[in-house]
Amino acid sequence: MDDRTLLKTVMDIVGRDRCLDDCAIIPFDDQVMVATTDMLHATTDFVGGMTDWQIGWMSAAVSLSDIASMGAAPRFMLIAVGLDRWEQLAGVMQGAKDCCTKYGADIIGGDIDRHAELTIVSTGLGMVEKKYLVKRSGAHPGDLVCVTGTCGQAQAFLEGYPRHKLALFEPQPRVLEGQVLGRAGVSCMMDVSDGIALSLYDLCDANGCGFSIESTKVPLPAGIPQAQARELALHGGGDYELIFTCPEEKHPIEGVSYTVIGKVIADRRVLIDGDVLEKRGYQHTWG
Amino acid sequence: MDDRTLLKTVMDIVGRDRCLDDCAIIPFDDQVMVATTDMLHATTDFVGGMTDWQIGWMSAAVSLSDIASMGAAPRFMLIAVGLDRWEQLAGVMQGAKDCCTKYGADIIGGDIDRHAELTIVSTGLGMVEKKYLVKRSGAHPGDLVCVTGTCGQAQAFLEGYPRHKLALFEPQPRVLEGQVLGRAGVSCMMDVSDGIALSLYDLCDANGCGFSIESTKVPLPAGIPQAQARELALHGGGDYELIFTCPEEKHPIEGVSYTVIGKVIADRRVLIDGDVLEKRGYQHTWG
Repeated sequence: MDDRTLLKTVMDIVGRDRCLDDCAIIPFDDQVMVATTDMLHATTDFVGGMTDWQIGWMSAAVSLSDIASMGAAPRFMLIAVGLDRWEQLAGVMQGAKDCCTKYGADIIGGDIDRHAELTIVSTGLGMVEKKYLVKRSGAHPGDLVCVTGTCGQAQAFLEGYPRHKLALFEPQPRVLEGQVLGRAGVSCMMDVSDGIALSLYDLCDANGCGFSIESTKVPLPAGIPQAQARELALHGGGDYELIFTCPEEKHPIEGVSYTVIGKVIADRRVLIDGDVLEKRGYQHTWG
Repeated sequence: MDDRTLLKTVMDIVGRDRCLDDCAIIPFDDQVMVATTDMLHATTDFVGGMTDWQIGWMSAAVSLSDIASMGAAPRFMLIAVGLDRWEQLAGVMQGAKDCCTKYGADIIGGDIDRHAELTIVSTGLGMVEKKYLVKRSGAHPGDLVCVTGTCGQAQAFLEGYPRHKLALFEPQPRVLEGQVLGRAGVSCMMDVSDGIALSLYDLCDANGCGFSIESTKVPLPAGIPQAQARELALHGGGDYELIFTCPEEKHPIEGVSYTVIGKVIADRRVLIDGDVLEKRGYQHTWG
């Protein structure tokens, strides 16, 4: 059992349209509020060597990244912390606050609980003008497939490349980039937290079309043999880049650094160099 | 170390005014959005014998109660679920959805995680007209101290009184009551989830005045010897009644069933029958 299969259970109960995007959407006149919640905890998410401050930073960053992927500006955050050792609270909260402050959000509430394992749930609220909101759906055949930054760096650290440590420990959500892309009129967007491959399959689920990318165009993490670097970029988790599609006439978009890695195709498949891309990346699984 | 002491650590980092009320406050013109997040998990909160549906119901109810205590109408909820057994997800989500539906909220998003222990974080958003918003502060000497329903029932079940089982397993947040009280102009309010005594001390922290209650006026759970029933009502946790203060001229408030248990006093102490009330109730503690 994996989390993408379990999500279908949730869709049956709360409705499929509530489960498609990185954030929920709450309309307010010509503005839209976006809302997202993310649970992180020691066993799965907090790697040995992370400071409490970095744990707090990461916990805020994951929700800010979801807000960014909708083209919205982060505004508010609530943080629920389940603590095994209360001494960690100050560092965690300071890290979360510093991340929020850097990206324009304010911590407005939370909860403190005693827990067997350090568990942090961040809930982020952002605002965007309705016309600039970007969803996972909206891609059209012929659009360019693009990605910000370089994926695979967080996983590279886990596989023995210490130079990529900060990519995992202190992820920088693409908050400014998301808003610029939304205003520029990109056609669909999400963040790449579970790898480029799984993200493309998620976009495939949300759209009536497919994606064809070229392996030579995918940016690769530095200092790593090419085959391994490509594997990391396509299938590694823990990065918070944005993947989006863009009508060709709107490219290039000024003010954002990104790479065109392929095109949207009518056929509802995910291809790399013309072959089917393996549907594999970071997933929670239950035995 | 207890959670109310730890909260001071959070106040130092995010600001004291962010930590005083049951919900955070987000102004929108003449409307206000209130936001709250609550973490529950198996060891501390989910009692043996609860069904998955009841676990989901309780998880939603605790956040709905916080929204009610601000005089607001629940509107939206996000649910993050950390699962040890994926088979529980459907029951949990159905219970949460049914509770939200009963009280007017819509589940709009969430997260699924694998966890060593079933852990649920509900984040609720509500709306209220600014003039009807009620906070923990606002009490004035001479105001009546009032409570809805009967506290102590949830704890009574834990102490061997099975007739009170549903009070613990399927708490009914005072959502309608909270809105009627807000419109009637009560002066301060919170929910009583950790017992009447701790709630009065929390109100003492938020106000510049104190509270004097009479033991004979406190409603007692049925079918329990009086001394034990009083102990449960004052110091037991797990009920989701509302405690509020009300200017005398506004009492009685139509449409809500409540009991006057005392008065607000100028002296910043909490008294029962003229003596200091023990500051004791449900708290998370760390060794």
